[in-house]
Amino acid sequence: MSKIKIGIIGYGNLGRGVQLAVKQNPDMELVGVFTRRDPSTVEVNDASVGVYLVEDVKDFQDKIDVMILCGGSAKDLPEQTPEIAQTFHTVDSFDTHALIPEFFDKVDKVAKASNKISVISVGWDPGLFSLNRLLGEVVLPEGNTYTFWGDGLSQGHSDAVRRIEGVKNAVQYTLPVKEAVERVRSGEHPTLSTREKHTRECYVVLEDGASKEQVEQQIITMPNYFADYDTTVHFITAEELQQNHSGMPHGGFVIRSGESGTHEKQLMEFSLKLESNPNFTSSVLVAYARAAYRLGQSGQSGAKTAFDIPLGLLSPKSAEQLRTELL
Amino acid sequence: MSKIKIGIIGYGNLGRGVQLAVKQNPDMELVGVFTRRDPSTVEVNDASVGVYLVEDVKDFQDKIDVMILCGGSAKDLPEQTPEIAQTFHTVDSFDTHALIPEFFDKVDKVAKASNKISVISVGWDPGLFSLNRLLGEVVLPEGNTYTFWGDGLSQGHSDAVRRIEGVKNAVQYTLPVKEAVERVRSGEHPTLSTREKHTRECYVVLEDGASKEQVEQQIITMPNYFADYDTTVHFITAEELQQNHSGMPHGGFVIRSGESGTHEKQLMEFSLKLESNPNFTSSVLVAYARAAYRLGQSGQSGAKTAFDIPLGLLSPKSAEQLRTELL
Repeated sequence: MSKIKIGIIGYGNLGRGVQLAVKQNPDMELVGVFTRRDPSTVEVNDASVGVYLVEDVKDFQDKIDVMILCGGSAKDLPEQTPEIAQTFHTVDSFDTHALIPEFFDKVDKVAKASNKISVISVGWDPGLFSLNRLLGEVVLPEGNTYTFWGDGLSQGHSDAVRRIEGVKNAVQYTLPVKEAVERVRSGEHPTLSTREKHTRECYVVLEDGASKEQVEQQIITMPNYFADYDTTVHFITAEELQQNHSGMPHGGFVIRSGESGTHEKQLMEFSLKLESNPNFTSSVLVAYARAAYRLGQSGQSGAKTAFDIPLGLLSPKSAEQLRTELL
Repeated sequence: MSKIKIGIIGYGNLGRGVQLAVKQNPDMELVGVFTRRDPSTVEVNDASVGVYLVEDVKDFQDKIDVMILCGGSAKDLPEQTPEIAQTFHTVDSFDTHALIPEFFDKVDKVAKASNKISVISVGWDPGLFSLNRLLGEVVLPEGNTYTFWGDGLSQGHSDAVRRIEGVKNAVQYTLPVKEAVERVRSGEHPTLSTREKHTRECYVVLEDGASKEQVEQQIITMPNYFADYDTTVHFITAEELQQNHSGMPHGGFVIRSGESGTHEKQLMEFSLKLESNPNFTSSVLVAYARAAYRLGQSGQSGAKTAFDIPLGLLSPKSAEQLRTELL
């Protein structure tokens, strides 16, 4: 059987993760990596994988089935997904929640016109967590859903700390508040403020001569990012940062706490504990690339989210095999 | 908007649960309960719900959209689902795992011929647990899946104990072995025997004059049911049984422990903690009744499992609303 031919657009943490994930799926092969950089400067450590300029993507119209878009949600994907969906089935992890409806409509128009499938906003949140939020409220319509994130490294918050004057390097971890999680798990339905749900911890390497007090003050009072949270700032050396804080762990929980007809407490929980956030997101993207390909083969087109796709299409196994082995 | 009209076939724990669950879903209404008993002896505590003989079900062809089949998997469903699918969309919780492929094929043929949708084998296992077993292996192809059940009351095992001579009444609880669960959660990939995964606890009320030793011996050596497990037998009074063991709690975990491309440990877990097993299963059946109705409206037909149905169809919300609120 011929393999599903995959292309990667954007070769950062996510793109490298997709390359690794494709290797774990024998029914797929990676054909090329597309970049805005000079291709000769991008090392993919695999002689069978070409590196090309993203402008040349249309030359691969007959050589690639699904393009996995690994750029950022702020600037890359809003332009790239509609552009690439003119020629290929696409999968992306667009995660700016507030802009998803607008993004969906734009991509849907393009993909319907080009007769392609564009799976948008898959990963773990949005993605697997969204599926569990949905399952929770349909199965337990009387109840509350709680999403907690962490323990995990937040890229956006780490960047915000790094932009402060006097900070040489920094990472930020988001931690769910254990007491809040336990209250929810016990079947209470607490109303939790932002501060009561998560705390933040920063590990900061200072520039020579910078003031700890000033940097700490700037962090903990930063609007949107830190002011609404209890934040702890640790000052460490560049060596400690390198040694203990180079990973990209993350995770979290979606908990639905509800009541069935005669007031029995019913609790559903989905949780992730990830040593590598980007490699997990990449694995989800690759599974949805298989679904995109199959939906395309069946003659469908347009934008799709995780809510629109039967989970059976994510698996290389046939429907018969799934019923026998997994149901 | 007109409501989805539901019928219930079989009015035991599951049927009563469906009646309660329909009340939690304002887009649905329960039209009738169908029974093999004399309808005048079945009390549904709702003047708007008629009780009818199951033989008269065809009179309701234009009055009911989806029939939810609440009979048992051993004797009722293998006959009822193919029979009822000739006239109505159906949903059932057929849970004899080994016979699912054969059951699917039989129901599929009937439902395709009658242009109806038959959603088979939904509930939590098979059902939500199956979805999570599938998600685990598609997202983390290199890894192992572990399903644990409990703490929970097992109806089949309770019945087996009750059939022993000298036993007046009994309940049996299945408990996951905590150490095994913790080993899996820690990222180990243990090979676990049946005995290492679950223990069993029986609470038994003896007939007057029955021998504790003999009954205990018969329980713990019973093939298939108990011989492969560490089983503890507690003898209690009828009053204690009534007071402390009348509920039907259950639950469990599906854990996928895998590795992504550069050997990071990645852990996915789905868990349920249910005070009422039948009422939860009923809630899942009702959500899939909505999906069955919508699939039928869109012109599809045939048998479907949880793997074949986009989760968005379970929700009363529109696709736009789901993208805005839950993605």
